[in-house]
Amino acid sequence: MGELLVGEYLLKRIQELGVKSIFGVPGDYELAFLDLILQAGIDWKGTPNELVGAYAADGYARINGVGVLVTTFGPGETSALCGIAGAYTEFVPVIHIVGYPSVKAQREHAILHHTLGEGKFNNYHEMSKQISCATTVLEDTATAASEIDRVLNALLLHGQPVYIGIPTDITFEKTRDTGLLVPLSKMLDPNNQGLESKILGDIGSRLENAKSPVIVVDGGATRHGVLSEVSDLITVTGFPVFTTPMGKGTVDEKCAQYGGTYVGVGSRDDVKDVVESSDLVLWIGMYPSDMNTGEFTVRVSKGDIVNFERFYTMIGGQKYPLKMKHLLRKLVDSLKSESVLPRQTKLACVPYGQEPEKPDGVITQSWLWPRLGKFLLEDDLVVVETGTAQSGFNASPLPSHITTWTQEIFGSIGYATGAMVGATVAFKEKGGRRSILITGDGSLQLTAQAIADLLRHGTNPIIFVLNNDGYTVERLIHGVEAPYNSIPPWKYTGLLDVFGPQTKSESYLVRSANELDSLLDNPSFGEPTCTKLVEIVLDKLDAPEATRKIGKAIEQFNKSA
Amino acid sequence: MGELLVGEYLLKRIQELGVKSIFGVPGDYELAFLDLILQAGIDWKGTPNELVGAYAADGYARINGVGVLVTTFGPGETSALCGIAGAYTEFVPVIHIVGYPSVKAQREHAILHHTLGEGKFNNYHEMSKQISCATTVLEDTATAASEIDRVLNALLLHGQPVYIGIPTDITFEKTRDTGLLVPLSKMLDPNNQGLESKILGDIGSRLENAKSPVIVVDGGATRHGVLSEVSDLITVTGFPVFTTPMGKGTVDEKCAQYGGTYVGVGSRDDVKDVVESSDLVLWIGMYPSDMNTGEFTVRVSKGDIVNFERFYTMIGGQKYPLKMKHLLRKLVDSLKSESVLPRQTKLACVPYGQEPEKPDGVITQSWLWPRLGKFLLEDDLVVVETGTAQSGFNASPLPSHITTWTQEIFGSIGYATGAMVGATVAFKEKGGRRSILITGDGSLQLTAQAIADLLRHGTNPIIFVLNNDGYTVERLIHGVEAPYNSIPPWKYTGLLDVFGPQTKSESYLVRSANELDSLLDNPSFGEPTCTKLVEIVLDKLDAPEATRKIGKAIEQFNKSA
Repeated sequence: MGELLVGEYLLKRIQELGVKSIFGVPGDYELAFLDLILQAGIDWKGTPNELVGAYAADGYARINGVGVLVTTFGPGETSALCGIAGAYTEFVPVIHIVGYPSVKAQREHAILHHTLGEGKFNNYHEMSKQISCATTVLEDTATAASEIDRVLNALLLHGQPVYIGIPTDITFEKTRDTGLLVPLSKMLDPNNQGLESKILGDIGSRLENAKSPVIVVDGGATRHGVLSEVSDLITVTGFPVFTTPMGKGTVDEKCAQYGGTYVGVGSRDDVKDVVESSDLVLWIGMYPSDMNTGEFTVRVSKGDIVNFERFYTMIGGQKYPLKMKHLLRKLVDSLKSESVLPRQTKLACVPYGQEPEKPDGVITQSWLWPRLGKFLLEDDLVVVETGTAQSGFNASPLPSHITTWTQEIFGSIGYATGAMVGATVAFKEKGGRRSILITGDGSLQLTAQAIADLLRHGTNPIIFVLNNDGYTVERLIHGVEAPYNSIPPWKYTGLLDVFGPQTKSESYLVRSANELDSLLDNPSFGEPTCTKLVEIVLDKLDAPEATRKIGKAIEQFNKSA
Repeated sequence: MGELLVGEYLLKRIQELGVKSIFGVPGDYELAFLDLILQAGIDWKGTPNELVGAYAADGYARINGVGVLVTTFGPGETSALCGIAGAYTEFVPVIHIVGYPSVKAQREHAILHHTLGEGKFNNYHEMSKQISCATTVLEDTATAASEIDRVLNALLLHGQPVYIGIPTDITFEKTRDTGLLVPLSKMLDPNNQGLESKILGDIGSRLENAKSPVIVVDGGATRHGVLSEVSDLITVTGFPVFTTPMGKGTVDEKCAQYGGTYVGVGSRDDVKDVVESSDLVLWIGMYPSDMNTGEFTVRVSKGDIVNFERFYTMIGGQKYPLKMKHLLRKLVDSLKSESVLPRQTKLACVPYGQEPEKPDGVITQSWLWPRLGKFLLEDDLVVVETGTAQSGFNASPLPSHITTWTQEIFGSIGYATGAMVGATVAFKEKGGRRSILITGDGSLQLTAQAIADLLRHGTNPIIFVLNNDGYTVERLIHGVEAPYNSIPPWKYTGLLDVFGPQTKSESYLVRSANELDSLLDNPSFGEPTCTKLVEIVLDKLDAPEATRKIGKAIEQFNKSA
């Protein structure tokens, strides 16, 4: 048994969670803690601002399992809140560490810079409570270690952000290291065996009786860590499988059972038909949000759904406290071992239909997305921005073993470029090779400075910027020609040079389908030899069919009060 | 008596407050409200992200009196919180309008995009309550107009931000216009006459007996709107006058009574001597924060201070509920009319000492700030970033009639560039001519995209970027050579071309004192004919003397627990 600093204890726990890089912006209430990060052998990845840092921690967590953001008290932490709120919504385990003024200064109610000037120190903590599954501000050496453990165990249980305030003095006080003998709880407790067996039987008989069963893989499959169980379930059942927009990329689209994206009215007609006429839908990790359901236009009867969730399973509208992680594994095992396997069901739709013809001049959205899909390779990482790209990407066929996501529910424009910073860092740490960002002009402008980080971390991503002269997705919802949907025109092809004048990079401007086609066909372009940016000029009002349909549905919904 | 839409009612009130431009980022829950803004004849000034929007609204409010930010629910509003928190701290009246989902959708607990995915709609409102003097989310047409009035009157009373959530449906419902017959309360209620007379007498006899009285003008003088009263007080008393860092620029520095900046240990020795040996300090709008007091090193005895505040006045440590706005005016009037005027007191210090010699090569901070001061003209607007610039600017002598500030208490790096957007818009609306931004490389990287707005609004500012290769102010506090205080090198002189390729601009890189001196001497450079950016290369560890002293005091304070 020995002693270590409170700051060191926290970092030991973070290393136990497999974190190798930490993101954030330095500030005086946290500077000394940053020394401990360096001493622990963790990489400090400074970000140009805290919002980019929060997005980066989110991107890192989606690949690595957990991400960490360090900011300073006040301006630092409040600048990151949008990123943390997004991680909360989408179940991304981000640890937000905030460097606090000393406990002594807090008790004296000193009017410190970065406070609200009133001698109070709890306001920012109160704000973060709204978007964290657990929070603490360390105030006492005696409880610091157990507070850290409590909060980190909540992070692992819920898969959502936590907030840890660490005052400058407490950071360097000593605590006992005995807590470290008990590892953090990385596994959910097992299910109640009796209930689990009963429900397994129930699901088994539904499987036997179903005439047209399908599987829908939703965002919860990744966010709650059941991808391998789901992959086995697909294989063992042989059922047709679909993804929602949030589930896009979680299923091997090269597998013969894959049918495409199901998103209510936003789906292809044949996909819609198959899913909505199914008499048994195994729905994995459902996120019934507007954007993920084509503005609440999913038409599958509750009675036909078995919905597997992190902490419960719902069958025909009835909720059982059974965690899907364990239940799915048992289900797969029972299906494998049973003599009567559920029959293979023939897929009645092709996921992407016929490849559209290449347009003569201007690039169309209907051609763009299938073409970008063809450019992707196995093992690529693809981060997709919200808005136009989010809808369009559902029309991109994917190779096997791809890592991809979009911030489907929270939908913060600017997220993808920031998330890309952390995603590429984690991807590189895990031996990943090629990473791609697909964003829009309006979105890029929010967090453009993140590109400087992409350049300096040497991960050599390819960045596609869809330039359609403003907020096209907003135009389609409301205000087609309204001035508020315009943005200032930037010279996107100049960004790499300005943000990384000492780093090799390539920039391209493409205005026609032919130009883009040739570029994507050029094998040397596809190699991740340096950071590359492609500005793709699109018509201001062109949009993926799904965006158009859903945009209208949104305006309708907003008006429907 | 007639009717109008709730959204129109809100905009009528905003126009009553003299607002001509509104800042923000469009989002689908607010798009229709933006139509009403255009219809009302108010300029919509879209910003590249919400943090820049919040800073812009703050900058606009500091010149115009009130500023308005419009964001969408969730990601939009939470991205702006740091900017609103800064406005709260520094008493800047910003109205934050948030486009909410319809009341109907809220009551149905719909899982909408931009929510936290839990069917709740109050979380973001709870967050903003921590940093607003009043908030409302309009839920009912019957009370909407009075809720708007309640919140806007609080804005005027406290001079701090308010939050107004306006759901898509309520925006377009009808309300009666009778409320508009009663104007918003722009004036504070008068003081209790008896108490006021008694205290005026008390102050009068203190003035008579004082041997070495001085006036210290602090941030509250501007923030609580008593500049004209203070100016008269200076004239009528003839006392030596000093400013704190937050008060910098609020006193005519060309006036013979002006003695310089008082900031505890960070002051020049002669300034420190005069203020600290005074037996009566009339302190206007005191902000006793660390940065504004040289890390709590002000050494003036409480018994010798008359501290004038927004809602109270403190004499020798005793607090009286007398608002300074009225009390100062009465004090000035009584001093004017009295037969025995307080005698003129000779100033025992010169504000800036001897002008430093121009260095042969590299630009030094000790030469830079006096030189930049000499460049300034009467009627200029100068927005100064926190950090190095904030300290250094105290060594810049100012011409008369200058408008300038820095975010002294909240101290969010990145603020100045964003605030400059709103400041220049308001300045132009009021007929202002030349505007100047002084920022650092680390700070600029947080909100660099704001430059695109500076370019498109045609206000032709001059931007000085102090490039000292990272967070120098942090280096001086802790981690002189630590990697976390480094930032990626950008090509700052390429920014104007990238952010405004279609706008005329000029960029300069200066590395020596001679180069900068010639540039500043060139009359055509000083003309606001287009946006100009000057990258000033400085030594990594050079800093204004005050920064150095205060940096050390901060680290000491952080450790002193």
